[in-house]
Amino acid sequence: MDQVDIDIVADPELQDPVLIEGLPGVGHVGKLVVEHLLEERENELVRRVYSEHLPPQVGIEEDGTAELVCAEFYALTLGEQDVLVLTGDHQAQDNVGHYRLTNAFLDVAADFGVERVFALGGVPTGELIDEYAVLGAATTGEFVSELEDVGVEFREDEPAGGIVGTSGLLLGLGDRRGVEATCLMGETSGYLVDPKSAQAVLEVLQDVVGFEVDFESLEERADEMEDVVNKIEEMETQQAGGLGADDDLRYIG
Amino acid sequence: MDQVDIDIVADPELQDPVLIEGLPGVGHVGKLVVEHLLEERENELVRRVYSEHLPPQVGIEEDGTAELVCAEFYALTLGEQDVLVLTGDHQAQDNVGHYRLTNAFLDVAADFGVERVFALGGVPTGELIDEYAVLGAATTGEFVSELEDVGVEFREDEPAGGIVGTSGLLLGLGDRRGVEATCLMGETSGYLVDPKSAQAVLEVLQDVVGFEVDFESLEERADEMEDVVNKIEEMETQQAGGLGADDDLRYIG
Amino acid sequence: MDQVDIDIVADPELQDPVLIEGLPGVGHVGKLVVEHLLEERENELVRRVYSEHLPPQVGIEEDGTAELVCAEFYALTLGEQDVLVLTGDHQAQDNVGHYRLTNAFLDVAADFGVERVFALGGVPTGELIDEYAVLGAATTGEFVSELEDVGVEFREDEPAGGIVGTSGLLLGLGDRRGVEATCLMGETSGYLVDPKSAQAVLEVLQDVVGFEVDFESLEERADEMEDVVNKIEEMETQQAGGLGADDDLRYIG
Amino acid sequence: MDQVDIDIVADPELQDPVLIEGLPGVGHVGKLVVEHLLEERENELVRRVYSEHLPPQVGIEEDGTAELVCAEFYALTLGEQDVLVLTGDHQAQDNVGHYRLTNAFLDVAADFGVERVFALGGVPTGELIDEYAVLGAATTGEFVSELEDVGVEFREDEPAGGIVGTSGLLLGLGDRRGVEATCLMGETSGYLVDPKSAQAVLEVLQDVVGFEVDFESLEERADEMEDVVNKIEEMETQQAGGLGADDDLRYIG
Repeated sequence: MDQVDIDIVADPELQDPVLIEGLPGVGHVGKLVVEHLLEERENELVRRVYSEHLPPQVGIEEDGTAELVCAEFYALTLGEQDVLVLTGDHQAQDNVGHYRLTNAFLDVAADFGVERVFALGGVPTGELIDEYAVLGAATTGEFVSELEDVGVEFREDEPAGGIVGTSGLLLGLGDRRGVEATCLMGETSGYLVDPKSAQAVLEVLQDVVGFEVDFESLEERADEMEDVVNKIEEMETQQAGGLGADDDLRYIG
Repeated sequence: MDQVDIDIVADPELQDPVLIEGLPGVGHVGKLVVEHLLEERENELVRRVYSEHLPPQVGIEEDGTAELVCAEFYALTLGEQDVLVLTGDHQAQDNVGHYRLTNAFLDVAADFGVERVFALGGVPTGELIDEYAVLGAATTGEFVSELEDVGVEFREDEPAGGIVGTSGLLLGLGDRRGVEATCLMGETSGYLVDPKSAQAVLEVLQDVVGFEVDFESLEERADEMEDVVNKIEEMETQQAGGLGADDDLRYIG
Repeated sequence: MDQVDIDIVADPELQDPVLIEGLPGVGHVGKLVVEHLLEERENELVRRVYSEHLPPQVGIEEDGTAELVCAEFYALTLGEQDVLVLTGDHQAQDNVGHYRLTNAFLDVAADFGVERVFALGGVPTGELIDEYAVLGAATTGEFVSELEDVGVEFREDEPAGGIVGTSGLLLGLGDRRGVEATCLMGETSGYLVDPKSAQAVLEVLQDVVGFEVDFESLEERADEMEDVVNKIEEMETQQAGGLGADDDLRYIG
Repeated sequence: MDQVDIDIVADPELQDPVLIEGLPGVGHVGKLVVEHLLEERENELVRRVYSEHLPPQVGIEEDGTAELVCAEFYALTLGEQDVLVLTGDHQAQDNVGHYRLTNAFLDVAADFGVERVFALGGVPTGELIDEYAVLGAATTGEFVSELEDVGVEFREDEPAGGIVGTSGLLLGLGDRRGVEATCLMGETSGYLVDPKSAQAVLEVLQDVVGFEVDFESLEERADEMEDVVNKIEEMETQQAGGLGADDDLRYIG
């Protein structure tokens, strides 16, 4: 195996596809969005990407078979738009690996003729959220304007420290290859898997890509999470004699 | 030295051999099994594998000579079955090294015509165990069925987090090369070197490979460990005024 | 992308330029100096250096666009002297990366014909400072003498442990290429971004390179920092009932 | 710069030289021995070895000049025996680097025709020592016997965990190249720079290599250290009301 190995599983012809990336990250926001898209639309696994920079690990499937850790690309259609979806259970395990894997991801995108990339993620606020804003960053001023028109917020110096990992590098390395890219980040507490934040990101994505999906299963997941949060708050209220729970929720997923 | 160096010590002709791997890991289960096989059967050292991804270290032999850290392959026969055994005192020291070493191990296996791999290990339960189940994962559904027939348990989402290190990659990378592989994991507390768990794994291995070995020395080792555990429990009972010792045993080997 | 990628943004002809490096470090002294020079003088961005040894990250500009982390070279003139300035927001993230990036920086310097390098930094004293000395190290005895003549102090065994990171390697690797180099280190508490230390370094640099800049904006920044320090001291005096604050200031920037 | 760069400083013809290595380690025992040899005998710097696996750092000389971190080889004569001495201020910073640097060291040794290597170090006992034994390990049984004849002790399973770093790999990688090598380890508390342990190692080395040096300066250093230890013990006795100081000395050098 080389540093990165790309398996061609299928090789459909796609019409000017966009790439939507949703790897694990803050609040699992990006991953929730792409999982929802894969549930809601017929799709075809087209590539598997293996790398010595991913964890040295196999996952166990329901039938007892083991699968080597990898990132996966799926092809599907949203409205009129052909789409490549990139997802997986892991990010690269080291800095150098982030660069090498993201370059491989952009190689796959180039194979399919992708000229626009949507990297999805969450931005942690540190407290529970009522109104889910979606923050953005993009490779060009024109793309920034287009995203502002559908409600994405661009705030100076946010997220502080920039965007780290695959999502950040899809913009940084994509731009160097002439690929237009944005990162859409749903605000999220950062403590919880956050289907509501995912829904906010998905709404923006619908507007800018031009499609509509049913939100029902995502809303159900949001309700389940709300029940969990309420229970925790109750328990903490009892334990703490009424103190608010916002500040010290542990990560729950 | 390259990233991985393979020394050919001997090059016997083997008849459709299987590979049995037992490197150090949880409860030293895998290593105990292969050590027992090497004690019970005549064997021949056939390969040494050196790597800059192993610790930069020599071990000291009884006669005062130093041996560079390596992994070793032995050839032996179990029943009618020719077998390669892979063991050693160390795993790779970094993620990338796990990939590179496991690929080298599979290269050696391919040299000898291995088409089936048994990776052995332990799965930690966090508490002392009465009935030693053996959990499994395998590269194909057929192999899963065959192993279920000899009592291996396949449980959804167990081990949680999948299988990490050489054992996991023997399945993951093996599968990509068309080699059938399983990981057999004896349940073990995770706190102790666990000869009883090793015995449970060995019993499964006997059934699926088709051989029988004497368990006496392994049982003696289990008795010794039991004495150790009993003493610790006594001491802790005295210290804690009767509290159970299960929860906070330290690792003893 | 290779380990290091150098983008040529502009390629002006420079007359016997010197290189002045100010990457982030103790007290941000080096970075403050080069930022001040870039504010005070017209300059031209000439190179961007990208590397998988920099953080896998993009920064967000004021207009919402994302920029891949990189180091940058600017060309400008100080007095009669053509100058290359090297700055950026990050150092390499690992030891090997420090070597590879610094070699790339020296490659860029060689492209422009640089024969003399000024690496700028701070040396932590652990306490607040009244008189800002500038310590030095250099690749040749002649350069040491020249710098002593403009007030740089060379003290045996200081800084203890030598000079680490890009600044150190510009001397170490520069010397191996026959490039004369010095590291000028302003004494600084180490707890604060220190514009006064930067001013001390800049005064030395003026003398040895032969130019003059206005210090006003740097002095304003120093005044702001002084206000911050005074407030902290007041608060700590109140809290501690009069104990000196020198020993346990936290890092503030 | 490549992973490892070897500078040829001088290239004297040596008669069947042996290599004596003394890089920093437990109690600085090995380094003290080779420093003593370099003080007591005329010598010539013959090689400098640079590497991206050494710290990214320069040291500052007394005259204010900076020197890139490196390992150094010196040529000298002890009795009738031509000797290469390997020393420096740093070991490799990572596992892979230990392998690559030690291979480079063995390349240099091969250039000069070295067929026998003495790696020197300390073995920590955890308590202050009256009688300084020298433990050994070697690549061949014959070398073990020869060293036993001059008082080196070979103890089963000591040092526990084997020998780590350059000293260990000089044996491990040396043996793979057909170079006879030993590691001589002076017992030392592990808390202190230990000239007495160095003297014990040096006495063995004298016997096996066949030379004699004056010990005076080493004995003076030992006396200085003893004064330090006595003062610490006094202070601790006063503080602890008479408790022994052996168990919790901090590292002093």
